[in-house]
Amino acid sequence: MLQLAPHIFHILHQHGIEHAFGIPGDFALTLYDALKESKIKPVIMTHEPSVGFAADVYARIRGLGLAVVTYGVGGLNMVNAVAGAYAEKSPLVILSGSPGIKERRQDSLLHHKVKTFDSQRRVYEEVTVYASAITDIETAERKIHRAIDYAKTFKRPVYLEIPRDMVYAELPEAEYERVPIKHTDRDTLKEAVSETLEILEKAKSPVIIAGVEVHRFGLQVELLALAEKLGVPICATMLGKSVFPETHPQYLGIYNGEAGDENINKIVEESDCLLMLGVFMTDINLGMFTAHINQKHTISATSERIAIKHHEYQNILFTDFIAGLLKNPHLPHFQFPNTYRMHPRVEEKIDNISMGGLIYEINQFIDHKTIIITDVGDSLFAADDIQTKQGTSYLAPAFYASMGFAIPGIIGAQLADPFRRVLALVGDGAFQMTGMELLTAKRLGMNPIVIIINNGSFASLRAMGHEDADFVNISTIDYADLAKVLGGNGFVIHTGLELRRALSVAKDSENFSILDVRISADDISPALQRLKTLFTQTLK
Amino acid sequence: MLQLAPHIFHILHQHGIEHAFGIPGDFALTLYDALKESKIKPVIMTHEPSVGFAADVYARIRGLGLAVVTYGVGGLNMVNAVAGAYAEKSPLVILSGSPGIKERRQDSLLHHKVKTFDSQRRVYEEVTVYASAITDIETAERKIHRAIDYAKTFKRPVYLEIPRDMVYAELPEAEYERVPIKHTDRDTLKEAVSETLEILEKAKSPVIIAGVEVHRFGLQVELLALAEKLGVPICATMLGKSVFPETHPQYLGIYNGEAGDENINKIVEESDCLLMLGVFMTDINLGMFTAHINQKHTISATSERIAIKHHEYQNILFTDFIAGLLKNPHLPHFQFPNTYRMHPRVEEKIDNISMGGLIYEINQFIDHKTIIITDVGDSLFAADDIQTKQGTSYLAPAFYASMGFAIPGIIGAQLADPFRRVLALVGDGAFQMTGMELLTAKRLGMNPIVIIINNGSFASLRAMGHEDADFVNISTIDYADLAKVLGGNGFVIHTGLELRRALSVAKDSENFSILDVRISADDISPALQRLKTLFTQTLK
Repeated sequence: MLQLAPHIFHILHQHGIEHAFGIPGDFALTLYDALKESKIKPVIMTHEPSVGFAADVYARIRGLGLAVVTYGVGGLNMVNAVAGAYAEKSPLVILSGSPGIKERRQDSLLHHKVKTFDSQRRVYEEVTVYASAITDIETAERKIHRAIDYAKTFKRPVYLEIPRDMVYAELPEAEYERVPIKHTDRDTLKEAVSETLEILEKAKSPVIIAGVEVHRFGLQVELLALAEKLGVPICATMLGKSVFPETHPQYLGIYNGEAGDENINKIVEESDCLLMLGVFMTDINLGMFTAHINQKHTISATSERIAIKHHEYQNILFTDFIAGLLKNPHLPHFQFPNTYRMHPRVEEKIDNISMGGLIYEINQFIDHKTIIITDVGDSLFAADDIQTKQGTSYLAPAFYASMGFAIPGIIGAQLADPFRRVLALVGDGAFQMTGMELLTAKRLGMNPIVIIINNGSFASLRAMGHEDADFVNISTIDYADLAKVLGGNGFVIHTGLELRRALSVAKDSENFSILDVRISADDISPALQRLKTLFTQTLK
Repeated sequence: MLQLAPHIFHILHQHGIEHAFGIPGDFALTLYDALKESKIKPVIMTHEPSVGFAADVYARIRGLGLAVVTYGVGGLNMVNAVAGAYAEKSPLVILSGSPGIKERRQDSLLHHKVKTFDSQRRVYEEVTVYASAITDIETAERKIHRAIDYAKTFKRPVYLEIPRDMVYAELPEAEYERVPIKHTDRDTLKEAVSETLEILEKAKSPVIIAGVEVHRFGLQVELLALAEKLGVPICATMLGKSVFPETHPQYLGIYNGEAGDENINKIVEESDCLLMLGVFMTDINLGMFTAHINQKHTISATSERIAIKHHEYQNILFTDFIAGLLKNPHLPHFQFPNTYRMHPRVEEKIDNISMGGLIYEINQFIDHKTIIITDVGDSLFAADDIQTKQGTSYLAPAFYASMGFAIPGIIGAQLADPFRRVLALVGDGAFQMTGMELLTAKRLGMNPIVIIINNGSFASLRAMGHEDADFVNISTIDYADLAKVLGGNGFVIHTGLELRRALSVAKDSENFSILDVRISADDISPALQRLKTLFTQTLK
């Protein structure tokens, strides 16, 4: 007979999940027993917000991630991280232990409970595409498959709650009939592809904008093939950065509205055919709504709909649309129209370190094996001028924008892709939120390189016209000393030369390294400098 | 003309709030501007879970607390702490910034957003007694007063969301007519008091059990007077520990069912009249449901209802019931029936430190100015044997039981009551969650004493039959070294003598101190030792 939790872990393992992020608790102890007996390795983190971020990053890379938490104090402490996974489409499975069915009947005031035994599930309904408590073994099989199917179809988090007295409940023998959540209507697809081709054929200056859904649906190879067949210039959004290789000759750089590179802005906004593939139409993603894109020149394909000019096609899977275009024999080929290429607006600076000098050194240092994770704040804006050396090597919470993402993200990324090495760029404020998670990196023998922008403030809030407000300043410490306490290498960086040397030492170390880069509170990245004016305008 | 946010801060200040805990963010920047201009001081923390805990503790001491956060990444990162405040009845006001009304109309995909602009408010409905977004200035005044009235009446969190373009919106001139949320029906009260007196008059061995609501409703003086008038023995629950002075001759100790002191257990369970005042009937509070209380001998008064034997009286305020008893001239007086007094089951141990030795030294060290905060895990169980020297000097999340409470709690307690000094007892696991908040203590010039139970594990999970599970082990570091990095004093403690000396040095320091107490993973407090068996039985 199959048993509930062992069965769930078995299915999840078949879906490619090898690690479960979490923290045990009394209502999840039996669930952890079952986890320990499964093929999935538990990865114990220090705090639930970190559990969510690590599992999110794992899901972004592997296509499915898993967090196992306890009831109330566990689950409710991860809501923000899961909300981020929802907003940025990361297929994360959350399993939460909960009070046993019998206990609920006998005792109404069990610890960790809020209003009712349903409170946590109801909270999760707001941040997932599927949230259910398995309280009846008869419907369990259906719920498990629905949850996973929803996660994989919508690339968004799902939530299952398992009462602690049901962990080893025996499942009735029954064939589960899988019903696809969404499917492509062939005639609709044909029509949408034909119309796209017609527009492309007439186009004079087509441009592709690549978005993050290309990564989520694993279509990087297809995108590359399509771009090369078409021979058109291509750019990416901030959230989609590196879904297309940034070293490719057709690649222009990041399109970011008025906040971005002027030449790219011109090429995109003057194009008579914008093929937007998997692009989220969000504010940060599009230069705080300074993008001037004329809808009558756009073909926008996402997992939610295919929109051509002012009309929409439903019932087409994003994957099928891309495949439909790619295999169409009539795809036109354009001569790559110009040789423009965005250049990082940063320069070598071997003396006093600056944000520009820091970005310059990062660009010199990274290679095709580097995964870059940036946190929120100027570390995110700085990424505009970082040039990755390989496709799919950049991760950031560029839409939901939750601080504290990067350090736990390291754990998720190094486990999901152990052959690459993470370089994390994080502000001091964000580091203070979840930096303790380096303890987990240490325990797992990881050697990421962590660059802390140590400027004693929330720099992007300062940049929003609050230079003189006390409440944007934060405490400073010596992060190099902290690194040593946590068991890693620590370097205090005052100059570009010191940075270069520290990176070189860190590169050869099998231990994690913190580079404590002392940046003046007034020194911000080129991108944030440009955004500063726009932010101020938006806020007024 | 009155403006929205300045008006809210003015009212809150009149209610005794002098500090607002929070972290600014772009959707809360204008709210922070208004806060800065008010009489309330912003206290910037490192992470939102800490914001919630600090504001919760401030609310427990002051009768009202305030957290000011940003939208999504701020509010949703504090759900667990607010759930704890709900479960343990702490009157906490949460103000969250949010996208402006105009922005919502123009742009649907603003950053920090999850499903809809209502998602966060809906989440908060699950963990507060009142949750509303102020989107219409006409109803603002009513919502503000309702929120505060609900918080103060139910002693639970309330939530108000303020769109960033409404912070300075002008309020229409109108008198707000205050309608009490709950009130006492005089006839019902009379009947309930009479019945209580009748039962008391016939009683042979009455006992009072004091619960945490005595603290929440500020009735410590009334409880003391009532107990002395009655002359009966009194004990407290874990959650209510220290609502009655633990040094008082009538005080027995903590009642904790089979998990607690045997003699107290006997006195309570054999009593023919149990006067339970403000007691939560929760599991941890009552020895994991091992309490054997015969309902036909109980009079239980809480803010929710007055229950005598098997019948209930509604419409009586807890405060009015206590006052009604106290001022009744026919209150009987009993001779204190015996001289039993619970003694801590711990002994001096000057050599290798143990949990027992640790508790012993704490009992020697603390004085009437000490506020003790214990986190969750064995630090909570250990508190059973700590004897406070003054009433209302103990704080812990003893029902909801969320780890990470103690260190942020220090900030809330020291600001709410600056004339006392905090000693926090925290496990290493809980410390790793929110210990970084000592940076805030340092910045504010506080000198709390933090005792870390450094045993490299989740000791209470180990005690639940999981001694051999890898997933209950956590990373260890030198917390004394960490203290120095964070700007405080650090002590590594191997023996009782070292502990005594370190406490004495810490006492005279104006800086915060971490005492890194090296406890064996197998060494647990007397209370957890007793609970170990019970836990195992409950789980099976």
